[in-house]
Amino acid sequence: MITIAEYLLTRLEQLGVKHMFGVPGELNLAFSDIIEDFQKITWVGGCNELNSSYAADGYARVKQSLGVNLTIFGPGELSAMNGYAGAASEDVPLLHIVGIPSTTQQKEQSLVDHTLGDGRMDAFMNAAQQITYTREILTKKEEAASKIDRILIECVSRSHPGYLALPTDLITQKISSDSLKFPLSRYVTQNDPAAEKFVVDRITELFGKSMALNEDAVVLVDLGAIRHDVVKELYDLLKRTGFPVYSTPMGKTAIDETYERYGGVYWGSVLSNPEVKKRVESASIVLSIGSFLSDFNMGNFNYNIQADRLIELQHDRTNIQDIMFPGVGMKQLIPKLGAQLEHLCDVASKIPVPKYDNILPQGGTEAITHEWLWPRVGQFFAENDVILAETGCPQYGIVDVCLPKGSVLLSQMRWASIGWTVGATLGACLAIRESTPRRTVLFVGDGSIQMTVQELSSLIRVGVKPIIFVLNNSGYTTERLLHSESEQRKYPDIACWDYAGLLRVLGDFDNTLSRSYKARTKQELSALLDNEEFGKGDKFIELVEVFLDKLDAPWALKNWPKPGQV
Amino acid sequence: MITIAEYLLTRLEQLGVKHMFGVPGELNLAFSDIIEDFQKITWVGGCNELNSSYAADGYARVKQSLGVNLTIFGPGELSAMNGYAGAASEDVPLLHIVGIPSTTQQKEQSLVDHTLGDGRMDAFMNAAQQITYTREILTKKEEAASKIDRILIECVSRSHPGYLALPTDLITQKISSDSLKFPLSRYVTQNDPAAEKFVVDRITELFGKSMALNEDAVVLVDLGAIRHDVVKELYDLLKRTGFPVYSTPMGKTAIDETYERYGGVYWGSVLSNPEVKKRVESASIVLSIGSFLSDFNMGNFNYNIQADRLIELQHDRTNIQDIMFPGVGMKQLIPKLGAQLEHLCDVASKIPVPKYDNILPQGGTEAITHEWLWPRVGQFFAENDVILAETGCPQYGIVDVCLPKGSVLLSQMRWASIGWTVGATLGACLAIRESTPRRTVLFVGDGSIQMTVQELSSLIRVGVKPIIFVLNNSGYTTERLLHSESEQRKYPDIACWDYAGLLRVLGDFDNTLSRSYKARTKQELSALLDNEEFGKGDKFIELVEVFLDKLDAPWALKNWPKPGQV
Repeated sequence: MITIAEYLLTRLEQLGVKHMFGVPGELNLAFSDIIEDFQKITWVGGCNELNSSYAADGYARVKQSLGVNLTIFGPGELSAMNGYAGAASEDVPLLHIVGIPSTTQQKEQSLVDHTLGDGRMDAFMNAAQQITYTREILTKKEEAASKIDRILIECVSRSHPGYLALPTDLITQKISSDSLKFPLSRYVTQNDPAAEKFVVDRITELFGKSMALNEDAVVLVDLGAIRHDVVKELYDLLKRTGFPVYSTPMGKTAIDETYERYGGVYWGSVLSNPEVKKRVESASIVLSIGSFLSDFNMGNFNYNIQADRLIELQHDRTNIQDIMFPGVGMKQLIPKLGAQLEHLCDVASKIPVPKYDNILPQGGTEAITHEWLWPRVGQFFAENDVILAETGCPQYGIVDVCLPKGSVLLSQMRWASIGWTVGATLGACLAIRESTPRRTVLFVGDGSIQMTVQELSSLIRVGVKPIIFVLNNSGYTTERLLHSESEQRKYPDIACWDYAGLLRVLGDFDNTLSRSYKARTKQELSALLDNEEFGKGDKFIELVEVFLDKLDAPWALKNWPKPGQV
Repeated sequence: MITIAEYLLTRLEQLGVKHMFGVPGELNLAFSDIIEDFQKITWVGGCNELNSSYAADGYARVKQSLGVNLTIFGPGELSAMNGYAGAASEDVPLLHIVGIPSTTQQKEQSLVDHTLGDGRMDAFMNAAQQITYTREILTKKEEAASKIDRILIECVSRSHPGYLALPTDLITQKISSDSLKFPLSRYVTQNDPAAEKFVVDRITELFGKSMALNEDAVVLVDLGAIRHDVVKELYDLLKRTGFPVYSTPMGKTAIDETYERYGGVYWGSVLSNPEVKKRVESASIVLSIGSFLSDFNMGNFNYNIQADRLIELQHDRTNIQDIMFPGVGMKQLIPKLGAQLEHLCDVASKIPVPKYDNILPQGGTEAITHEWLWPRVGQFFAENDVILAETGCPQYGIVDVCLPKGSVLLSQMRWASIGWTVGATLGACLAIRESTPRRTVLFVGDGSIQMTVQELSSLIRVGVKPIIFVLNNSGYTTERLLHSESEQRKYPDIACWDYAGLLRVLGDFDNTLSRSYKARTKQELSALLDNEEFGKGDKFIELVEVFLDKLDAPWALKNWPKPGQV
């Protein structure tokens, strides 16, 4: 017999959780005691609940497995809601655990602190249900194990956040540990054999016809490939068939950008590199893997790929041209496609692929510009880097950077909650610490870092060493560019901070754990990027405040398509 | 004809709004343009949405009128949800305006950024509905004016937050300005004359009987008196009748604490001053005004006032002993009671009232203790100060401090979201700036200020001058005391910061706008409090980092009652 808390923690540990995040509070303290005594999971307290939720999300994204955030009922959970909504939007398996009043207090509708004062104990859970379908509230110990198991399987299998509410009186009650002998596993959509065969045959026929006519066919990879765990299967298909592969912005780093048949990023008709645009838009078949629709990802809905040329594989369905086959999921489908399409390899391997690279513009000003910055940091990146690009300029800038082998890009391109990367960097660094050392490199704008700045102190406190570039362009430059009226307005302005002074006051009092710099010119920044000690990312948190003009922006943001533009 | 945005702004201005808070984002930029051009309301951009929501709440509490916060759909509004939930819990009229996708995008379920990716455009509004009943979504211009008017009347009349969603395409559409000639006003529960007469007669009879027997009768004031606008009526009743008056913790400063018939704070059986306990608990009638039930406010539900001695007046009902009279509200009732009870003044004025004062303990350590701190700052306070006490130690400590005439205490004692005061201070200071100068004095713990620290920079940016005491006791001391197991745990620890260094990096680079201090001993703190320049509160933001032992706490927290303790 073990406590419900220990049961839950053991399940989390079985699913690979080694760090969990959150903020302690009266309604989760008994659980916090048990977490602290549980040897296999390390508790990481955050400065606030939203930041901790972002950390758990960053942790989950790097590991491609479960992240966990713990809050209290009411203020705590509501503060974290934007965090797990981001996970819902971008298919991240994130468990939000909430310490709630005891079952007796709930029954009596006791007006305990943290309630709305109207006796409704279920208001916050009902709000949570709008954000995440996967939800459990423990109500008696007899059901605890099965409810815990169910929500965990749902989270990891659907790659979706879940909400688990633990009443204070239940957490220390004892239940059988018997079922823990059988670890949980991620389930995969089991394809109906007949439907799957039909789909494979139809796709094979379309590819065969296309190759016979010497037309192009391309694969277009999106975030779903990563989230729904088909990257290995996809590589196998690509290598067996030789088809060219492109990614969307959100699909970046699903496929190594140095892979010889990788041609770069398709970002709709206006923003794509002209060669990429031509290759993708003229292909007679676009095999789309795990696509994620959103205006950023699609260059403001600017795709020029007609439905009759599109085959779309998703984790739970397949669309061939206009016809949908629900329940034919890509995890089982892709290997079969690989086998059927292998014979086309000779022809497919000859389909041209543009060269994708980082080309530094020559000349220009002394001052740092986005045009120069992004290819320049492209040269700075090294194999296996974990790169975080905040919403706003970093996101627009990073899309066109060719990233090195083994690197991972984290960027919240659909949910787009500014400030997310600061918390996510904490989680990412701790996920990395669990395995082979890799550098973590963060790009965050000044407006964004102001949202969540306190979590820099947690980086110091837990002893991780990211490299942080704060892009100081005096406010919300993205707004100034996306809404021309904003350009001369005051509301996109923000307070001026001494970003390079932050780490000292936030905990590194004697500058033994961090180094901070200010870079105002290309020369200053280049000198730093070329400095071997700086680039190591193992001794110090390195923070560079990079100064940019408030109306300078990455090309894509300056040229962001108007609705319907071609 | 004027734009819907101008219509809304004019209505806000008519209701007394001179500052509004929020964070600009793509979905509210067209509205932001119009706000910036609207001369009568000043836009105050915050570092994040939660903090701005807190600012709007603090603004509303100081003015006892509407506060306004503007965010975008999705990440922005969800980040602010904890903020307006606090307003719901503590009856604060706060309008949360959300810039949402256009009516066309909604109809098409367009997968724009900031959605959950499942086409549901109403998910966040549905979540909001769990928190605030008062909600409007503009869908066509013809209904805009009436929907805006309805939600504003609801907010101010019920003293409750409201949620107003503005699609991007509607905000600039033109509507008639005709109805603006008729300003909106707060409505009051109109009492049924017969029911009201019955209630007045019954209460008069009970008081008469009590006075005839020479028993005590007391008035107990709670937060509802402030929120539902009966303070003036209540003073009139108190002065006409001479009854003694006490307050709950949440009711503090509804009645001047220097009023001769004010006896102090009733905080349940265990925590109240023994004299107050005796007087309140032995009274044969307790006339309760606008009571707010919560475990903090009631000393962990530790009231010893039997129902047969209780008369409870609320804004929308009256309870006499066990009988409820719905629809008999106190705004109209209290003046009538005053007239009927006036004849008891001679007897009532003789009911003894304990002396309420700040008594400084003598001797003890050099180090600052809570036992010494709170009466000491009690001596520092001046008339008309606005005092903010954060959840945690400041809240437990401030209850027993006798506050000066005209002062206002803001403390989130039921919702208890830590970090709230930092944002609320911004709003409070701006509310004050609109009228007569007063000092603003904030007490915030280290764990709490870490939640919302960035908003200190907005204080610098807008040029307000609060006096800030950061109580540095190395973490979540309240947790250590409320849950004894926590005492030796690591999870209540937080990162060490240089609080006195914060204002410099957050914008006051050359220390021209602020002064920061560290106080480790009683002598150091006393010297500062006695310094006339320090106490002025008009030239600089003053920030004092006050060091306290991590297990020291106010008496009430150390002696917090166990459930059922007497």
